[in-house]
Amino acid sequence: MTRVVTLLTDFGTADGYVGEMKGVLASGAAGASLVDIAHDLAPQDVDGARLALARYWRRFPAGTVHIVIVDPGVGGDRAALAVESEGRFLVGPDNGVLSPALLHAGMRCVSLPIPPGASATFHGRDVFAPAAAALAQGIALDALGEPLAHPVVRRTPEATRRDDGAVEGVVITIDRFGNAVTNLMAWRGGVVTVGERRLPLARTYGDVARGTPIALVGSSGLVEIALREGNAAKELGLTRGSAVVLLPAG
Amino acid sequence: MTRVVTLLTDFGTADGYVGEMKGVLASGAAGASLVDIAHDLAPQDVDGARLALARYWRRFPAGTVHIVIVDPGVGGDRAALAVESEGRFLVGPDNGVLSPALLHAGMRCVSLPIPPGASATFHGRDVFAPAAAALAQGIALDALGEPLAHPVVRRTPEATRRDDGAVEGVVITIDRFGNAVTNLMAWRGGVVTVGERRLPLARTYGDVARGTPIALVGSSGLVEIALREGNAAKELGLTRGSAVVLLPAG
Amino acid sequence: MTRVVTLLTDFGTADGYVGEMKGVLASGAAGASLVDIAHDLAPQDVDGARLALARYWRRFPAGTVHIVIVDPGVGGDRAALAVESEGRFLVGPDNGVLSPALLHAGMRCVSLPIPPGASATFHGRDVFAPAAAALAQGIALDALGEPLAHPVVRRTPEATRRDDGAVEGVVITIDRFGNAVTNLMAWRGGVVTVGERRLPLARTYGDVARGTPIALVGSSGLVEIALREGNAAKELGLTRGSAVVLLPAG
Repeated sequence: MTRVVTLLTDFGTADGYVGEMKGVLASGAAGASLVDIAHDLAPQDVDGARLALARYWRRFPAGTVHIVIVDPGVGGDRAALAVESEGRFLVGPDNGVLSPALLHAGMRCVSLPIPPGASATFHGRDVFAPAAAALAQGIALDALGEPLAHPVVRRTPEATRRDDGAVEGVVITIDRFGNAVTNLMAWRGGVVTVGERRLPLARTYGDVARGTPIALVGSSGLVEIALREGNAAKELGLTRGSAVVLLPAG
Repeated sequence: MTRVVTLLTDFGTADGYVGEMKGVLASGAAGASLVDIAHDLAPQDVDGARLALARYWRRFPAGTVHIVIVDPGVGGDRAALAVESEGRFLVGPDNGVLSPALLHAGMRCVSLPIPPGASATFHGRDVFAPAAAALAQGIALDALGEPLAHPVVRRTPEATRRDDGAVEGVVITIDRFGNAVTNLMAWRGGVVTVGERRLPLARTYGDVARGTPIALVGSSGLVEIALREGNAAKELGLTRGSAVVLLPAG
Repeated sequence: MTRVVTLLTDFGTADGYVGEMKGVLASGAAGASLVDIAHDLAPQDVDGARLALARYWRRFPAGTVHIVIVDPGVGGDRAALAVESEGRFLVGPDNGVLSPALLHAGMRCVSLPIPPGASATFHGRDVFAPAAAALAQGIALDALGEPLAHPVVRRTPEATRRDDGAVEGVVITIDRFGNAVTNLMAWRGGVVTVGERRLPLARTYGDVARGTPIALVGSSGLVEIALREGNAAKELGLTRGSAVVLLPAG
């Protein structure tokens, strides 16, 4: 059985830390297929990792093992998790970064023991990669640690409906293109307001002239603020947490 | 049959978009070998992607599937392509980014249908990755779409010979080291002029003192302006489109 | 036999140079598993590559082939190496970048011939990738070139003990998080001085308040200067070569 093991970290690649993890995986799960998701997350950006994970974890086939490590509390008393959810496996610190998988009914979760010789600053190599290799080899989740009842969960804040029917939300992340992804759900038309600007909901970037800001429903079903062939976040001064309002049509 | 699927995009990796594509590929073409080319192209740099593709697409074995996505027109009326050329397959938007493969005799090209549920902003996940997975599974090109007679082609501008024998060219790209790659073809000696500077053609960086600008024939057979252990483009103020002239020897 | 081939370069990815190398590997060693270590090393940072390699090369299973290319002298008279050490294979320029493997007893090393048609500026594609493909195919080291007796070795400077028992060392690298890794070996307690600051040795980041600089034993067994949830190198003005002193406990 060839299993896929994916890696998402904030380690960068140049220092060789990810290389060490891959060596542990190649040694402990020979034949597993190693797939990089990203290593250039902003250092210690737990929410950025959580939002990225939400996008991809269920796109991979059942049996895939996802390693997700953004871990400011490494070596402290936070638990180290291995999770089985929707047929996929995940390993990572108990700081909410695995929340997309933890929120599913039927999810099972164990706390990984920290071996005596483990580095206090690099559980990626000494705890998570060995656990991922074991799972990729077909070892059962229950064999890896004791059940943990209440892992830490982080949630994207929910948008709230006002009495006048408008929906108040926030920007939850800015992507590489400068698109500002919000927590507003798809809607059949309407107008999004950002500060003084009113942006009608369009279908795609090409629906407006170059350099014009628009709102559209992005590929994860959430409203995004974009700028055709430009950087909306920079142009409109948007960051995580910026307020946005959706005025439904009609 | 284990096929190789390569990925070249301007998506970055941190947002999880490439992760989503890899999940679609791992699910739709189990056992295919996923190979990253790059995801850090400058956003919407179609020519940069085209020039990178020209370097590598035929180095891979027959049967390889190359995904190339730099796609400012996503969701608009540009076609989505699948191509077979020289025994390799390619998928990407019809904006010229696949030109290195389109310019070969015997090339065949189809237009991929956009499925009803596809995101208008992420054909990488909903159109191109599924098509690449199908090709990696051995499904025939013709089964994926209708033939397209005239895909968009972009070309590197050709250098022009003057009456006095000199050849006028331009810088077509700057690489990571600051080497300025031109559209001047290899030559048996000569001098390259850039602004007021005259640079004799050398063989490699080590042929001159540290910090000295030189011209040499790069690894793709084109003349490059380089600076030993330094950044020629910054030092000489070169960018894409900068004029260069080759004065042939004797 | 499926062998793993890893790649560490300073080529970046966007220009397609690494793509060319991967194409050569996919063609010459079908079925080999290509594993990226990093391509974003600072251009021509031989020591950075050497220190990263030291971390990962023996974590991979026997038979793995490591490609390591940071090569300011490409095309000059430096030799091109293939090495067998501790059951792993390595290829790269003879400039010290492979030192972690060269310093082991029983190491064997050959000089790779430069084929007549090789580019003078891209041995990664024309010399090292073909040699790595051959090794991944099971071809013996001795078949690839003539033995080389004295490859270039670069060493991390050793810390020195003063008469008063203190140990003088230096910062040898700064990692992505701003942790300053020194050449001081692990110690049972003590205090590290950096300029005017005295930092007691702690166990992990969480042992101090946010934003407080600490010294701890990092994951490679060396003393590091870190800052909880911050960038120690920036905050304390540390760079490679900065002086540090360890005052042993009691």
